[in-house]
Amino acid sequence: MYKIDPAILDKLVSNALQEDLGAGDITTRAIVPSELEASGEFVAKEEMVLAGWPVAVRTFQWLSVNTSSQCFFKEGDTVPKGSILGRMEGPAFSLLSGERVALNFLQRLSGVATLTRKFVSAVSGFKAVILDTRKTTPGLRLVEKYAVRVGGGMNHRWGLADGVLIKENHITVAGSLAEAVSRARVGADHLKKIEVEVTTLDEVAQALEAGTDVILLDNMAINEIKKAVALVDGKVPLEVSGGVTLENVRELASTGVDYISVGALTHSPKAMDISLELKLLL
Amino acid sequence: MYKIDPAILDKLVSNALQEDLGAGDITTRAIVPSELEASGEFVAKEEMVLAGWPVAVRTFQWLSVNTSSQCFFKEGDTVPKGSILGRMEGPAFSLLSGERVALNFLQRLSGVATLTRKFVSAVSGFKAVILDTRKTTPGLRLVEKYAVRVGGGMNHRWGLADGVLIKENHITVAGSLAEAVSRARVGADHLKKIEVEVTTLDEVAQALEAGTDVILLDNMAINEIKKAVALVDGKVPLEVSGGVTLENVRELASTGVDYISVGALTHSPKAMDISLELKLLL
Amino acid sequence: MYKIDPAILDKLVSNALQEDLGAGDITTRAIVPSELEASGEFVAKEEMVLAGWPVAVRTFQWLSVNTSSQCFFKEGDTVPKGSILGRMEGPAFSLLSGERVALNFLQRLSGVATLTRKFVSAVSGFKAVILDTRKTTPGLRLVEKYAVRVGGGMNHRWGLADGVLIKENHITVAGSLAEAVSRARVGADHLKKIEVEVTTLDEVAQALEAGTDVILLDNMAINEIKKAVALVDGKVPLEVSGGVTLENVRELASTGVDYISVGALTHSPKAMDISLELKLLL
Amino acid sequence: MYKIDPAILDKLVSNALQEDLGAGDITTRAIVPSELEASGEFVAKEEMVLAGWPVAVRTFQWLSVNTSSQCFFKEGDTVPKGSILGRMEGPAFSLLSGERVALNFLQRLSGVATLTRKFVSAVSGFKAVILDTRKTTPGLRLVEKYAVRVGGGMNHRWGLADGVLIKENHITVAGSLAEAVSRARVGADHLKKIEVEVTTLDEVAQALEAGTDVILLDNMAINEIKKAVALVDGKVPLEVSGGVTLENVRELASTGVDYISVGALTHSPKAMDISLELKLLL
Amino acid sequence: MYKIDPAILDKLVSNALQEDLGAGDITTRAIVPSELEASGEFVAKEEMVLAGWPVAVRTFQWLSVNTSSQCFFKEGDTVPKGSILGRMEGPAFSLLSGERVALNFLQRLSGVATLTRKFVSAVSGFKAVILDTRKTTPGLRLVEKYAVRVGGGMNHRWGLADGVLIKENHITVAGSLAEAVSRARVGADHLKKIEVEVTTLDEVAQALEAGTDVILLDNMAINEIKKAVALVDGKVPLEVSGGVTLENVRELASTGVDYISVGALTHSPKAMDISLELKLLL
Amino acid sequence: MYKIDPAILDKLVSNALQEDLGAGDITTRAIVPSELEASGEFVAKEEMVLAGWPVAVRTFQWLSVNTSSQCFFKEGDTVPKGSILGRMEGPAFSLLSGERVALNFLQRLSGVATLTRKFVSAVSGFKAVILDTRKTTPGLRLVEKYAVRVGGGMNHRWGLADGVLIKENHITVAGSLAEAVSRARVGADHLKKIEVEVTTLDEVAQALEAGTDVILLDNMAINEIKKAVALVDGKVPLEVSGGVTLENVRELASTGVDYISVGALTHSPKAMDISLELKLLL
Repeated sequence: MYKIDPAILDKLVSNALQEDLGAGDITTRAIVPSELEASGEFVAKEEMVLAGWPVAVRTFQWLSVNTSSQCFFKEGDTVPKGSILGRMEGPAFSLLSGERVALNFLQRLSGVATLTRKFVSAVSGFKAVILDTRKTTPGLRLVEKYAVRVGGGMNHRWGLADGVLIKENHITVAGSLAEAVSRARVGADHLKKIEVEVTTLDEVAQALEAGTDVILLDNMAINEIKKAVALVDGKVPLEVSGGVTLENVRELASTGVDYISVGALTHSPKAMDISLELKLLL
Repeated sequence: MYKIDPAILDKLVSNALQEDLGAGDITTRAIVPSELEASGEFVAKEEMVLAGWPVAVRTFQWLSVNTSSQCFFKEGDTVPKGSILGRMEGPAFSLLSGERVALNFLQRLSGVATLTRKFVSAVSGFKAVILDTRKTTPGLRLVEKYAVRVGGGMNHRWGLADGVLIKENHITVAGSLAEAVSRARVGADHLKKIEVEVTTLDEVAQALEAGTDVILLDNMAINEIKKAVALVDGKVPLEVSGGVTLENVRELASTGVDYISVGALTHSPKAMDISLELKLLL
Repeated sequence: MYKIDPAILDKLVSNALQEDLGAGDITTRAIVPSELEASGEFVAKEEMVLAGWPVAVRTFQWLSVNTSSQCFFKEGDTVPKGSILGRMEGPAFSLLSGERVALNFLQRLSGVATLTRKFVSAVSGFKAVILDTRKTTPGLRLVEKYAVRVGGGMNHRWGLADGVLIKENHITVAGSLAEAVSRARVGADHLKKIEVEVTTLDEVAQALEAGTDVILLDNMAINEIKKAVALVDGKVPLEVSGGVTLENVRELASTGVDYISVGALTHSPKAMDISLELKLLL
Repeated sequence: MYKIDPAILDKLVSNALQEDLGAGDITTRAIVPSELEASGEFVAKEEMVLAGWPVAVRTFQWLSVNTSSQCFFKEGDTVPKGSILGRMEGPAFSLLSGERVALNFLQRLSGVATLTRKFVSAVSGFKAVILDTRKTTPGLRLVEKYAVRVGGGMNHRWGLADGVLIKENHITVAGSLAEAVSRARVGADHLKKIEVEVTTLDEVAQALEAGTDVILLDNMAINEIKKAVALVDGKVPLEVSGGVTLENVRELASTGVDYISVGALTHSPKAMDISLELKLLL
Repeated sequence: MYKIDPAILDKLVSNALQEDLGAGDITTRAIVPSELEASGEFVAKEEMVLAGWPVAVRTFQWLSVNTSSQCFFKEGDTVPKGSILGRMEGPAFSLLSGERVALNFLQRLSGVATLTRKFVSAVSGFKAVILDTRKTTPGLRLVEKYAVRVGGGMNHRWGLADGVLIKENHITVAGSLAEAVSRARVGADHLKKIEVEVTTLDEVAQALEAGTDVILLDNMAINEIKKAVALVDGKVPLEVSGGVTLENVRELASTGVDYISVGALTHSPKAMDISLELKLLL
Repeated sequence: MYKIDPAILDKLVSNALQEDLGAGDITTRAIVPSELEASGEFVAKEEMVLAGWPVAVRTFQWLSVNTSSQCFFKEGDTVPKGSILGRMEGPAFSLLSGERVALNFLQRLSGVATLTRKFVSAVSGFKAVILDTRKTTPGLRLVEKYAVRVGGGMNHRWGLADGVLIKENHITVAGSLAEAVSRARVGADHLKKIEVEVTTLDEVAQALEAGTDVILLDNMAINEIKKAVALVDGKVPLEVSGGVTLENVRELASTGVDYISVGALTHSPKAMDISLELKLLL
C-alpha cells in the first residue's frame, strides 16, 4: 500500500491542529501535569474498513515526538465491531489535546473507505471498476482519494490539470462534439486521453466518430446504457455516472460498462464511530 | 446575518482552487476562447436550506474579477426543489473552471444548514438549543459552524482554547471531579465557564457540589437524564450529547435540558444536490 | 510549568532569524571557519525573573542541530545580578549569528516576567490577581502571555474570540447595558461568561441587574471602587483596569477587587540586560 | 517621507489581526448590526511624535474596504496632548474589532518615534547622529526602524546581511583585529564598509592601522572616548554604543563622535497613550 | 492566447520582489522623491519572440497600483531589433525598484520563446511537434512552459502526477517492459496514456506488443529512428528525445516522428537582451 | 566552504518537489514496490566544476529520511568527464521520484560554477575579481550566488537593500552626479559604500570629485577604460560591466580594473550534462 506523501500529511495535520488548538488546550493545561504519561486505545464501535491510521499517528507525533504507536490492522482491513484498532503511548497532554483531530481524520477516512468497499463488493463479478470524482471535501482531496484506493476503488483524475473531460458546456462552446474533441486533441498534451460526457445514444455515436478515447454516459437510463454498450462494442472504455447508489450500482455494472464513478464516496460518507480510550501510566 | 471573515474566505477558496486547478484546467483552456462570456444558474435539485452562497461568489471572483452575481434567496432561507438559487455572470472559462469548487462548498454547507434546521425543527416548542461540536471537517471548522448558525443552531466552543470542558480523562488525572474543577478554575481565565462531562447521577451531584457552571450529560439514558434535570433543578444549565439522532432528539428535548449537541451536524451531513446550468452569451 | 507550543516557537524563531539574517551573516561567514566550536554563557547583568530560555535554545538549534544547552535556573526563578543563566555549546558561527535574536527574545520576555512579578509582589496579602491585557506586541501575544504566567500573573482572554467583554461602544449600539448583555447571552456560546466594562456606580448597579458574570471597573477613583465593592458585595467578581502602576496597585488591591489588569505588563516592559559571553573551544 | 512597503504592511496587519481575532470578535458579532456605520477619533492623551498612522489605516481597511480615513498631522509631527490625530469612518463592527490592533501598532511606533526625537534633541548642536540597533522586537524590525527615521534618527544596518560589524568574538576567532579585518575585506562584497567594535585605545589604534572604515567604541568612558576622537582625528567616522541614556547622550555627543547608537530606542520604548473614541452614525 | 493564472503570477512576482528588495531599495529611497512620476520604454536590443510582458506589468503594479502600461506587440510576436516593446508609466521609485525583477522575467521568458520558435521553424514542413520537458528551472515551470507555447511549441506533461512515462529503471523493477506497462495500466487512472521510453528496436517491438499508447525513442541514431518509424507504421505516436539541437532537429523530424522533446528549451536558453529606458515626467 | 543556509535549502527543495510531484509520481507509484531499495550514481557526462551536491542530497532526504549519500568530490572541484560525482542510496521510489528535481538543481548550479571558473581563469594573473550581478533567476538568487563563489567568483550586492549603486536615472532625478552621491551619503546607513555607474571620462572625474567610494564603468570601450584607470589612479576601486564575454574579459582585466561583473554567469549559463544511473538492490 503506497504511503501518503509525508509533506502533505504534515501540512494537513498542522493546519487541523492549529484550527483546533489555537492558543492552546486550556482545560488540559490547567489540569494535566506535563510529565504524565498515558496510553490510548482506538476502538472501532462498528464494523469498518480502516483508513487513515498514519494520519492519527502523525497528529500525536506533532504534539510530542515522544509518542509511540502500534496498529493491529492494516490500512484496508475490514475491522470487526469492538476491535482495538491500535494503541498510542506518550504524554497524557498530547493524547488529550490531539484526540479530536486524530478522530476527525480517522472517522472520515475510514468512512470513505468503508463506503467504497460496499460499492466495490456490490459489483463483484462484473468488470466494472468503482471510481471516485472531484466531489471531494475542499482541502482533503489527496487523502480522500487515498481512502478510496484503500477501500478498493480507483481514482479518477486528481483535478482539472491532469485529465481531459469534455462536458456539455464545452461542446456548446465548440459548436459540436467533434470540434470540441479536435480542439482538446490539439491543446492537451499527447499523454492525455480525451473523455467526453454524453447523455444520448446519438452523442455516443458522435463521440465514437470523433475518435474519443473514453466515453462517459451521464445520467442515462439502464436500457439506454445497454444500448450504448452494444453500440460501442468494446471500441473504447465506457464510464457511467450520475445518481449512482448502493441500490442501483450492481444493475449498472451488469450492463457491461468499464467504470462507474460515484460522487457519494467522498461528498456524503458517514463518519465511522471510533473512540479513544485512555489509561494513565501512573 | 453576520458575514464570513473575508480573509478566511479568501484562504479557503484559494486553497480549494489550487487543489483542483493545479497547473490549469486543460480541457477548458483547449476549447474555450478567453473572451467568451457566460451566465450560470445554480439550481436546487432538492429542497434545502441555503448556506454558502458568498463562498461560491468568491470562488468565481478569484478566477475573474469580472464576475457579477445575483442571489434570489438569503442565507438560511428554505429553498423549494427546482428553484434557481442565484446567477453568476462572467468569462465562460472562469465559470467552467470554478464550477466544481463552488459546488463542493455550496453543497456541503447547505447540507450542514439543512440538517441543522431539521434538528432545530424537531425540538420546536422545547427550550433546548441545538449545538454543534468539534467533530468538524479538518480545515473547514469556521464555515461549517457558520452553516450551523445559518441553519438555526448555535455554536459550541470553537476549539480547545476558548472553552473549558472537563472530560472523564481529566477527572482521572486530577483524582476527583472536584479537584479537576478546582484546577480549571485556577488555570483558566476568569471569563471562562467550567463545563464537566458526566455519565451518572452521582457525578451530576458531584458536579453541582463542585460549583460547575454547566453540566454535560454524555450518553445517558432518557430516564437518567430526567432524573438529572430534576436533581439540578435549574441551578446550572444542562447539555446532553452522544448518539443524538433526528429520531431521538425530540424525546431528549422533552426532558427539559438546555442544550443538545449533535456531532452529526458536521461529521456526516448529506451534500445537497445543486447543479450549475450555463448559458453562453454569444 | 507548561511549555510553549513547539509549532508556535518554531514559527516565531524562524521568522525572527529570517528577519535578522536575510541573505546571511556576512561578517561571520567571512571570518569564522565553519568547523569551529564554541561555548556561550548567558549572564544576567541585573536581577531579573527568567523567562524565555526555551526560545533562546530553539534559536540556536534552528541554526545548527549540533547545539547543546544547559540552564542553571528554572523559568520564573528570580536570578541575582551577575548570575550565569545557562550555557550553549555548538558551532561558533551559529552562536555568533543567533546571538542577537536569542537575546531579543530573552531580554523582552524576562522583562515582562520581571515586571509582572513586581506587580504580583506589590499586592501580596490581598486576594487581587494580576492579569495581562490585549495590549501586547503584534505577533508576540502567546509568548508574552506565557511570560506573564511565568512571572506569577494570570492571563485575561487571548483575543476577541475567546471571551466576551462589553465596552461602552457596544452599550451605545445596543441602546442599554441590559440590552447589550442580553444580546451577548444569546450570541455567544454557553461556555462564555459575560463581562461588562463600566465607569460609574450607576452602571455597576445596571450590570448587576442585567445578570453580568464579571464587572470591569475602568478608570474609576479609589473611593468609587470601594463603593462598587460594597455594592456588588461578592455577587460577581470585580476587575479594575486603567492607569494601573506599581505605585497605585497596592491601594487598588486593598479595595477588595478580585482582578487587576495591567496593560503596562506587555506594552512597556523594560528589556532586561543580558549578555552572551563566548569562549572558543579550540 | 518614504512609505512603508505595502506588502510588508499587509503581512504585519493580517498577522496581527489573525492573532487577535482568531475565530472572530464574539462580543461585537453578538451586539453590533453589520450595517451600522461609525466614526472614530484617535486622541493623543499625551504629547507625542506621531508614527504609524498608515498602519492604523491599513488595519481598518483590512476589516472593511469601506473605511475612509483622514489624518490631521504628518508622520513625525509633534502632537500636543489632547489633539485629535485623525479620524476613521466605516462599519462600526470593523472599528470595534480593529481598535486594539491599530492602537497596539500606533502606540508602540509613536513611542519609538517620540523617544528617538528626545535623543535627537538632546544632541542638537553637535554633529552626532542618533542611530538605532538590531535590538528590535522580533517581527517588527522594519516598522520600528521606520519609526526611528520618523523620529529623526538614522538607521544602522538592517540585519546581519547588509553590513559588516566585527565584534570581539570575531577578533578572537581570527587571532587578531587586523586578521579579522583582512578576512572581512576579502569575504564581504566591495560595497560594504568594515566596522570594528573596540573597547580600548589600543584597539582603536589597531583598527586604524588595519584600515577599518568605521570604528565603534563600545562601553568606553567619556575621557577614553575623547582620547579616541583625538587619536582618530577624523580619519574614519567614530560610533559609540553601550549604556546610552537621555542623561548621558549629550555628554557623549560633546566628545565629537559621529554616531551614537541607542538600543533603548527599540528595546524599551514606552507606549504612547492614545485612545479611540467612537461615535455611531445612526 | 491563454493567460497566466493570476494567482501564480502574483506569487512569482511577490517572491522575486521580496528576494531583490528585502528591506528596501536604499539607493532609490535616498535619492528619488516619492511623488516623482516617470515613464519607461522597454527596448529589444536584439530580435526576439516576445514572452512575459504580463509578468513585467504585474511587477510594477505590485510596487504601485498607479502604474499604467501599454504593449506594442502581442505575446509570441517576432520583434525586430531596436523595437520598443512597450511602455510603463507610474511613480519613478517603482519603475527604478522593479526594473531588474521585471527584466529578469522578461529576458528569460523571451529567451525560452525565441529558442522554441527556432526549433519550430527548423522542422517546418514536417509533422513533428516540438515539446518541452521537465528540465525546467525550479519554481518557474508554469511560466517557462507558458513561454514554450508562446514560442509555438507544445507542452509535455506538467510533472509526475499528470502523465505516465515508463523509463528504463521502471522496466528493470517490473522485470519486463510488458509487466511495467501492465502495472501502469492498472495503477494509473483511465484518462492517462502510457508512454514508454526505449532505446532499441527490440524494445520498440516489445512496447507495441505490450499495448503502449506512445513510444519515446531516447538517444537513438537517425537510422535506428527511421527503422522504428517503419516498424511502428503509425500504430502509435512516436516521440524522440536526447541530444536534440538546432543542428540535428530537422533531420530528426525528417524521419517521420510525431514529437521531438527538447530539454534545452528550458534548461539552457540564452536570456534576451532587453533594456528599460526611463524618462522623468517633471 | 560555507554551507547553504539549511532553511533556504529546505524551502527551495520542497517548492521544487511540490511543483514536480503535485498529487504524486503516478508512474512510480504504479510500478515500484515501496520496500524496494536502490543505489544511484551521478555521472558527469562532460568536464565541469561541481556545485549543488548538498541540494541533491536534500532533495532525496526530503522524499525519504532513509537516504544515505556519499560524494567523491568537493564543491568547486573540477570533475573530469565520465567521473562518478557521488552515490545516493535509499528507497527506489524516492530515487526515481526525486531524480529530475535533483538534476535540475545540480546541472544548473554546476553550470554557473563552471562558467564562473572559466571567467576566473581567463583573467588569471590580473588583479581583477569576477563578480556576479542581480541578473539571477527569480527565486534562486542565493544558491546561484553560492555557485558563483564555488566557481571562484565573488558576489556583488545581494539585492537593493544591502548596497548603494547610483545609476543614470538616479543622477537624472537628483539633477547631478554630485547631488545624487550627496543624497545617498545622507540616506544610506554609515556602513554602505557609495558606488556610481558612469559611462564617460567626464563622469569619472565628477564621481571622484563627489567622493564616490567605488566607480562602475558601464559599457565603456577598452581605451576609455584605460584612461579611466589612469585618471582614477588607485584612489578608488573601479568595476567594469556590460557585454563582458569570455572573449573580451582578459583584455578588460588587462586594463587594471579591480572588478569585472558578468551578468552571463547567472542569466545564461549552460546546464551541465549529468545523469543518474540507478541499480536496484534486490
